[in-house]
Amino acid sequence: MLVDGRHYRTIWEKPPANERDLPSVIQVIDQRALPFEFVVEDLATVDDFARAIADMHVRGAGLIGAAAAYGMYIATLNAPDGHAFGAAIDQAARRMRATRPTAVNLTHAVDRQLAAIAGAPSVKQKRDAALHTARAIADEDADHCCAIGTHGLAIIEGIRRHKTSGEPVNILTHCNAGWLAFVDHGTATSPIYAAHDAGVPVHVWVDETRPRNQGASLTAWELGNHGVEHTVIADNTGGHLMQHGMVDMVIVGSDRTTRAGDVANKIGTYLKALAAHDNGVPFYVALPSSTIDWSITDGLTQIPIEQRNPDEVRFIQGAVHDSVQKVLLTPPNSPAANYAFDVTPARLVTALITERGVCAPQEDKLVEMFPEHRTKTSIAQS
Amino acid sequence: MLVDGRHYRTIWEKPPANERDLPSVIQVIDQRALPFEFVVEDLATVDDFARAIADMHVRGAGLIGAAAAYGMYIATLNAPDGHAFGAAIDQAARRMRATRPTAVNLTHAVDRQLAAIAGAPSVKQKRDAALHTARAIADEDADHCCAIGTHGLAIIEGIRRHKTSGEPVNILTHCNAGWLAFVDHGTATSPIYAAHDAGVPVHVWVDETRPRNQGASLTAWELGNHGVEHTVIADNTGGHLMQHGMVDMVIVGSDRTTRAGDVANKIGTYLKALAAHDNGVPFYVALPSSTIDWSITDGLTQIPIEQRNPDEVRFIQGAVHDSVQKVLLTPPNSPAANYAFDVTPARLVTALITERGVCAPQEDKLVEMFPEHRTKTSIAQS
Repeated sequence: MLVDGRHYRTIWEKPPANERDLPSVIQVIDQRALPFEFVVEDLATVDDFARAIADMHVRGAGLIGAAAAYGMYIATLNAPDGHAFGAAIDQAARRMRATRPTAVNLTHAVDRQLAAIAGAPSVKQKRDAALHTARAIADEDADHCCAIGTHGLAIIEGIRRHKTSGEPVNILTHCNAGWLAFVDHGTATSPIYAAHDAGVPVHVWVDETRPRNQGASLTAWELGNHGVEHTVIADNTGGHLMQHGMVDMVIVGSDRTTRAGDVANKIGTYLKALAAHDNGVPFYVALPSSTIDWSITDGLTQIPIEQRNPDEVRFIQGAVHDSVQKVLLTPPNSPAANYAFDVTPARLVTALITERGVCAPQEDKLVEMFPEHRTKTSIAQS
Repeated sequence: MLVDGRHYRTIWEKPPANERDLPSVIQVIDQRALPFEFVVEDLATVDDFARAIADMHVRGAGLIGAAAAYGMYIATLNAPDGHAFGAAIDQAARRMRATRPTAVNLTHAVDRQLAAIAGAPSVKQKRDAALHTARAIADEDADHCCAIGTHGLAIIEGIRRHKTSGEPVNILTHCNAGWLAFVDHGTATSPIYAAHDAGVPVHVWVDETRPRNQGASLTAWELGNHGVEHTVIADNTGGHLMQHGMVDMVIVGSDRTTRAGDVANKIGTYLKALAAHDNGVPFYVALPSSTIDWSITDGLTQIPIEQRNPDEVRFIQGAVHDSVQKVLLTPPNSPAANYAFDVTPARLVTALITERGVCAPQEDKLVEMFPEHRTKTSIAQS
């Protein structure tokens, strides 16, 4: 998507000095500096990749997968030609996996790279195969997100037909399921960008998304850079807006979806789903099918909810003068709790927007769209 | 309630040097410094009171009323004895009213003081009457809040009987309807303090309450000082907690209540009411009857919702090292919206806890408890 009028993905190859050489530097946006500074970072070693993923210079399901894939490619490039090559690759795989142990896309990407590397006969061909695979993983991620945009655009156009001409379609979103979390387009944002680019007027209510404020710092930043009208709101605000007809639809992403359509997403999503349901506002979840856990049906009992450091609630980071500071918000001795996700039951979800199309949040409908998952399998095996 | 083990109200008279003199200095807690510093401020002129109310050194329905009442008393003390006395009092009344034009308790307090002052024959007696009236207004506020605590305590004890022995009753609250907003006890917090003081184990989930963070900065501070177990959470968290049985009841305050039981309270209250309803968690609203607007029935269409400065969303204040700083949270160019309240429909409210008792949120039940309001009257006339 656009940054200062120029198209970017979240990860790309720095063109080598000599055109015939393999790329040896991968570039990413260091997202820790957003929304105050746009920093491009060079990644040239396995160490660089491990640090960038573990310390969240890059984050988001799709981007973590692509970064791990490129990290494995860089490992093939830097590994010695001889008999130590295999050991270096195995060590790189272990390092990549350890960065964010629960990220499913990361495991998939590393496994796929190991298979590709093993399947190539020579070291030169292993490097070519790893580059090819990293590119394929990044492109597939962008393609899936793009397809989600196409399917979601039809929904937005349908809503627009019932509005007064010129009035924007008001879309509320929570957290950052944007292009910054994937390679391009994003999931929840993909239909929004597709509508904007197609000339459909849209306006986005951006939940700031406490405690980590991904909405205020990332979603608002990317929408603004792409020229999409938006307004940042406190997470408390969405219910009031829906009561007064100021939200036409909600679109959020998903961190994990059950085969019955329950959705685990950033904490607070469930509250917006309740408000949407109470006010007849359609509530959509945009997700690549890779986030569906085909092994479970009941989100509330079967999806464990990560508890993160309470200091993410007690402190917040923002800009003051020319620096970024972290300030304490609570009494120094008050404890805090920090649950990272909640589960929205399928009964509150209008439909899932996947790369294959729009689907009711029901097991039979999901299996009809993804017949290869007719039998229950765990997410790791899918 | 307690601060560092010592009992405080939010407003009190500084004992005069000579016991037989009238008090000439009123003291308040400058709440702008909380939760990082406990600052007691002397108010000795009408100017001092006007600034303290307008700039929110003191805030909250009950406290604003008591402060305005004491401001009028100080006006009688500082007004010249002769024929200019009346003009000085009228000017003071205008100044008090202008500080927070929508605060109902403030108007009531000023009107009551003007009547008391007019009813006394001499300047000396006018000063005595004004002091007597200020004390009465402050005491009534504290008494009403105390009565709310007594009625609410019975509810908490009822819930406790269904819990395993020793387990605390988990209460979620939103914003600050605490003693800092009144003269003592608070409304939503009053049953909590009553339970704590009676030895009933309670634990409070404190919504931080973006954008102004009254939960994180005021409610957490006052609960901590009184020794009540509590945990600060992002406003997004309550739904998840309720889904998992971690909340036994919700108690919030009210800024304005219709005669049919709709409740306007801090933005985000409605979302918690929806979650409580969806999970069978009782949702109580604690309020002195002075916040009931007997002239209206439909909160959603009849209560106007204040929009405040968007910078309250875009910036936040917190402590860094030894100073308090304001930091920017959003991209510099992203707009924000700041709706201060929302309306929770009566259908989502389990009961109202008033100074006269616990009441279903229904017009016939409310009128039964407050028969003097059988006919519709506006809040200003009540």
